[in-house]
Amino acid sequence: MEILNLVKIGGNVIDNPQETDLFIQNFSNLHGFKVLVHGGGKLASNLQKRLGQEPKLVNGRRITDAETLESVIMVYAGLVNKTLVAKLLATGKINPMGFSGADTGLIIAQIRNPEPIDFGFVGDIESINSAALIRNLQMGITPVVCPITCTTEGQLLNTNADTIASELAINLSRHFQVHITYVFEREGVLADINQPDSVLTEIDSLRYQELLRDGKIVDGMLPKLENAFKGLNKGIKSIRLCKPDALLTPEKGTTLKL
Amino acid sequence: MEILNLVKIGGNVIDNPQETDLFIQNFSNLHGFKVLVHGGGKLASNLQKRLGQEPKLVNGRRITDAETLESVIMVYAGLVNKTLVAKLLATGKINPMGFSGADTGLIIAQIRNPEPIDFGFVGDIESINSAALIRNLQMGITPVVCPITCTTEGQLLNTNADTIASELAINLSRHFQVHITYVFEREGVLADINQPDSVLTEIDSLRYQELLRDGKIVDGMLPKLENAFKGLNKGIKSIRLCKPDALLTPEKGTTLKL
Repeated sequence: MEILNLVKIGGNVIDNPQETDLFIQNFSNLHGFKVLVHGGGKLASNLQKRLGQEPKLVNGRRITDAETLESVIMVYAGLVNKTLVAKLLATGKINPMGFSGADTGLIIAQIRNPEPIDFGFVGDIESINSAALIRNLQMGITPVVCPITCTTEGQLLNTNADTIASELAINLSRHFQVHITYVFEREGVLADINQPDSVLTEIDSLRYQELLRDGKIVDGMLPKLENAFKGLNKGIKSIRLCKPDALLTPEKGTTLKL
Repeated sequence: MEILNLVKIGGNVIDNPQETDLFIQNFSNLHGFKVLVHGGGKLASNLQKRLGQEPKLVNGRRITDAETLESVIMVYAGLVNKTLVAKLLATGKINPMGFSGADTGLIIAQIRNPEPIDFGFVGDIESINSAALIRNLQMGITPVVCPITCTTEGQLLNTNADTIASELAINLSRHFQVHITYVFEREGVLADINQPDSVLTEIDSLRYQELLRDGKIVDGMLPKLENAFKGLNKGIKSIRLCKPDALLTPEKGTTLKL
């Protein structure tokens, strides 16, 4: 099977034009099959505030009422997705195509059970239909996937971008050797959140359980690592977390293994 | 050559959920190759007002400063495009895929000359690269195109949706027999704008010149008909304007011919 690099870029990188441009340059130099999955939470929160909505997050996940849903659709599928697609196109090295979960029915979700916490229009992934995405990959196209999903009844939903990266990678593992890189604003997973130089080069399942138990993994890092280890158990070849400037330097950042 | 129906749906229809749902049902029952092009101007103006921006239009075209550009990208490529894609998917008859001009470099534009009127981030179409769109059509996918274009340097731009429908139809005429239907809020082109029952069943070039001279064609209808007649001269097979409920009834609305 051929190698496919699935890269997930987070909201704090997208929010910074210099970091985004650096990322785009590095991403466009990755060889072979590529998929980009992006978030955009910080920009969504900015729009919400400008519209007089109050962003509410629980364990790094956004409570999504009808107004919030409109804001995240506009920011993720509109502003962020098309800005990234346009920048990738301008490199001259990438033929990008934006996808939401609704496009070609790529990611079908259902509204999350309102117990114990009612997240509103938040979707849990039900199925991934990657046939059209794969055919586009084979045509030399690079899919750029935003974290908006869709029910079979046509209701758009907000789904965590890390979860999408992980589930899409698991699905694509039937056709490719999939390697994930989570690109975010830190050097990697830190042993001490207050010490930027305490990067853990490698974390295996055992160390992960220790870090969890000691409360070292907090906020947005919780779903990120939870999804990552689930993915390793389901066929993803490797997972790495790093800054934009380390995308092409495999020895940097934190690599996760079983 | 096979037939392709290119349908353009305007902002005043999209703004009305009942009309949109009726349109979606009719559109999903069109046979064969289909492309949907949409606007969304009214919803863009609504968002602009909520963000304290003042929508400015000249001859039905929006003056697009940097803030306005963000709003139209969010509304056209985000909210409207994904809402239509999700609704089409839910019919079970359509496999939809959203496109902006940046996706696969479909529609490359340049910023309009600021003389005589500086429209800001408004794009005039430079080239259409429909290879990926056509391959997706041949895979059974229905492209849903929003009116955001892109320069070769990656600058997103706002382009009139009627112009996109017309130019895309001309481009696709090399591969298909293309028929355009412009779906909007009126029964057709009216002989008297104050009389909703004064629908002109057919307008040829001569009658069009008369109507123009008599000042019967105003506002959004000006670029619509201008583009339409240009398209007929360049290979488009037929052009019709009608309401959502008349999409499947060819004898309704106004048909344009040379």
